[in-house]
Amino acid sequence: MTPFKLTEELVLQIEQLIESQDNDQLNLLLQEVHYADVAEIINELNEDEATYLIKLLESDKTSDVLTELDEDVRESILKNLSYKEIAGELGELDTDDAADIIAELPKEIVQEVISEIADKEHAKDIVDLLRYDEDSAGGLMAKELVKVNENWTVTKCVKEMRAQAENVTRVHSIYVVDKDEKLKGRLSLKDLLTVSTETHIREIYIPKVDSVNVNEDPEEVARIMSKYDLEAIPVVDEIGRLVGRITIDDIVDVIREEADRDYQMAAGISQDVEADDSIWELTRARLPWLILGLFGGAAAAVIMGGFEEIFREYTILFLFTPLIAAMAGNVGVQSSAIIVQGLANDYIKGSVGSRLLKEMLLALLNGFILSILLLFFTWFWKGDFYTSLAISISLIAVIVVAGFVGTFTPLFLHKRGIDPAIATGPFITTSNDIFGILIYFVIAKLILGI
Amino acid sequence: MTPFKLTEELVLQIEQLIESQDNDQLNLLLQEVHYADVAEIINELNEDEATYLIKLLESDKTSDVLTELDEDVRESILKNLSYKEIAGELGELDTDDAADIIAELPKEIVQEVISEIADKEHAKDIVDLLRYDEDSAGGLMAKELVKVNENWTVTKCVKEMRAQAENVTRVHSIYVVDKDEKLKGRLSLKDLLTVSTETHIREIYIPKVDSVNVNEDPEEVARIMSKYDLEAIPVVDEIGRLVGRITIDDIVDVIREEADRDYQMAAGISQDVEADDSIWELTRARLPWLILGLFGGAAAAVIMGGFEEIFREYTILFLFTPLIAAMAGNVGVQSSAIIVQGLANDYIKGSVGSRLLKEMLLALLNGFILSILLLFFTWFWKGDFYTSLAISISLIAVIVVAGFVGTFTPLFLHKRGIDPAIATGPFITTSNDIFGILIYFVIAKLILGI
Repeated sequence: MTPFKLTEELVLQIEQLIESQDNDQLNLLLQEVHYADVAEIINELNEDEATYLIKLLESDKTSDVLTELDEDVRESILKNLSYKEIAGELGELDTDDAADIIAELPKEIVQEVISEIADKEHAKDIVDLLRYDEDSAGGLMAKELVKVNENWTVTKCVKEMRAQAENVTRVHSIYVVDKDEKLKGRLSLKDLLTVSTETHIREIYIPKVDSVNVNEDPEEVARIMSKYDLEAIPVVDEIGRLVGRITIDDIVDVIREEADRDYQMAAGISQDVEADDSIWELTRARLPWLILGLFGGAAAAVIMGGFEEIFREYTILFLFTPLIAAMAGNVGVQSSAIIVQGLANDYIKGSVGSRLLKEMLLALLNGFILSILLLFFTWFWKGDFYTSLAISISLIAVIVVAGFVGTFTPLFLHKRGIDPAIATGPFITTSNDIFGILIYFVIAKLILGI
Repeated sequence: MTPFKLTEELVLQIEQLIESQDNDQLNLLLQEVHYADVAEIINELNEDEATYLIKLLESDKTSDVLTELDEDVRESILKNLSYKEIAGELGELDTDDAADIIAELPKEIVQEVISEIADKEHAKDIVDLLRYDEDSAGGLMAKELVKVNENWTVTKCVKEMRAQAENVTRVHSIYVVDKDEKLKGRLSLKDLLTVSTETHIREIYIPKVDSVNVNEDPEEVARIMSKYDLEAIPVVDEIGRLVGRITIDDIVDVIREEADRDYQMAAGISQDVEADDSIWELTRARLPWLILGLFGGAAAAVIMGGFEEIFREYTILFLFTPLIAAMAGNVGVQSSAIIVQGLANDYIKGSVGSRLLKEMLLALLNGFILSILLLFFTWFWKGDFYTSLAISISLIAVIVVAGFVGTFTPLFLHKRGIDPAIATGPFITTSNDIFGILIYFVIAKLILGI
């Protein structure tokens, strides 16, 4: 396989073909290109060009392209399509993807678009899905699945499966339900290849099947599916009826989004921006955290101002304030990051007390090593052993407290049901800057007897 | 489904049953527990208890349990098993999992263990896999797959498939090869359900199939599979022969590990530690970054020392050094994080020049807003407009330079083929601390005409 590579030349070529309306060339050029790659191309085009291309290509391809586009590009293209054209695209899509797109449409046109969908069964399934919270298993699931009744024979089952499989892109498992649509178990494809055709499903199905409730959190669904290595999981409603299924490709997206969000949060970026977003969007995502940092810095300045009277004699104390702030921040971020990650991966066991004790022992060890290094540096630089020792001892105290705050904060937030990821990055850095500098000056003053 | 919950009571109960050697109770209790959950329990037991349980349970379950255990727990259990017992477990596993476990065994016993594997074909496949670099598609793939020859009929194909499927946990696609084992295409399960039995495979197979080379980077495999929504991908050797396949569950692990690594890197933790690791391991992962921060802080102190002569008159400049360092660090981390994430997700398009220009415009906008805020704060606090203005203008300069460094460094590293994730976290914070403080004092001095 030669991997597809998006180049400026390719985009330019396509723009020229669109301008000269050379439809044959365009079709030929894009025929062999995967829809995910076509979406990458279209993301680079302007609105008119993008709309032109979507109208030109066949709708079984363009419907998939639409699902892969950047949200703003998709929105501007759909604006230029008629209700019937949008309905045509939705008709080609799996119900979960169709529901996701409908949820983005302006409210006033949703009904018209849905009424234009030719396959009424498909339309009904999509409407069903619109009921669910986007941030739940129900919001993630699709209606496409293969299900058989426990009272059928293998022959009937295979016949029904063929019909159902027509609408299902990937058959993972065949789910078995009873007469009330309640999920009873599953039938593996392999089993179906190896039993006699007159067997009843109830005799051969596997009664053990993992499932999730429609209201389950997507991240919990992701955790279950990856822990148990599942490629699809059936979704049941409050009374155990099979209402949909979630496939692993949607879960891969959930995992990536979760990781991206945590990463951005740790870096001080509110969720959901990309490098290619506008300066305005990027500013909105980043400025609040910077303002938080500014307040922290101002608070640190006020604290330092309170020690102004010792400036002349102990200038050296002030020279190390950026070092103290940096170490407090770094230790805090390290401690909180490892807790946040542990919580996300469900690694954190044992009591909060033992966790804190461990982190403080760790901070003590690190702090001791770092303080020795700093002691020799300062002593060598300024020649004043006693002051150097005071600075080093203060550093140990700062590091232990920073480790405590970095460990305690995410554990506390988690207990309170708040996403602990918010405790990483600027939040912990800023509070540790302030604590750190305060502790540093107080302890140094005490030791030096000022 | 009632989700499994690991409790101290459950672990205690199992420990007591092991002590009283109540094998029936143990078997009964663990019979319905998923192997991934049994692994969680065993991770909590001591070596003797763990070994006892592994020897007690049936080997089709324990082999799966072994793959899910923490590496050190697995190592200590395998030490207590005979070559034959280990070979028995490996015989139950898919080739990729078996090869992963063998790679962890002490070199001197590998040959003995392999020679004890009963199924010689299976042993041969495992040995084949040992040749590949762990960090490549070859190191990730399994030998279990269903492949058919293009010259077979559907009847022969189904017969062969049944036999092959016995050894394959999940059949995703049926791969089609020619007489030289070269990958030609695939056959979907659905197609096989809907054509006549005398058709030749060469007439019905889909010649378009994505594949990856054995030497491909796992993260690139993950990118391809998640971009194209693939649940399995065939792996070919240098001359196009089908040698294995990679399934999405392995890719989910790759994605999670990659995200964890980037996250830890950004937080200043060398890869591969968990909250439950020993204090010594955690120190080794964290201390190097803290020492880097210490050097940075020392450098900042030396720089500030160079401006010591303006201390008495412009004390206020020194009060804001932690603020300057914090803002330089935060902006640098934000800029680098968004670039690193963009590079990982393949979002970064366009030239380096335009990217830098955009980031600097963004920094200018943010810097301007933040400086206004700081100006009012300082002016109000100290009442000296001119000095306050000098500090604010310096802050803008610091932010713009920090944005530049944060954007340029990961792009530069990426161009050089170095993992740009190293440029986030302490690395960028530390260098920006130093740059920031230097720029701040130089510009403030210039403006104030000192």
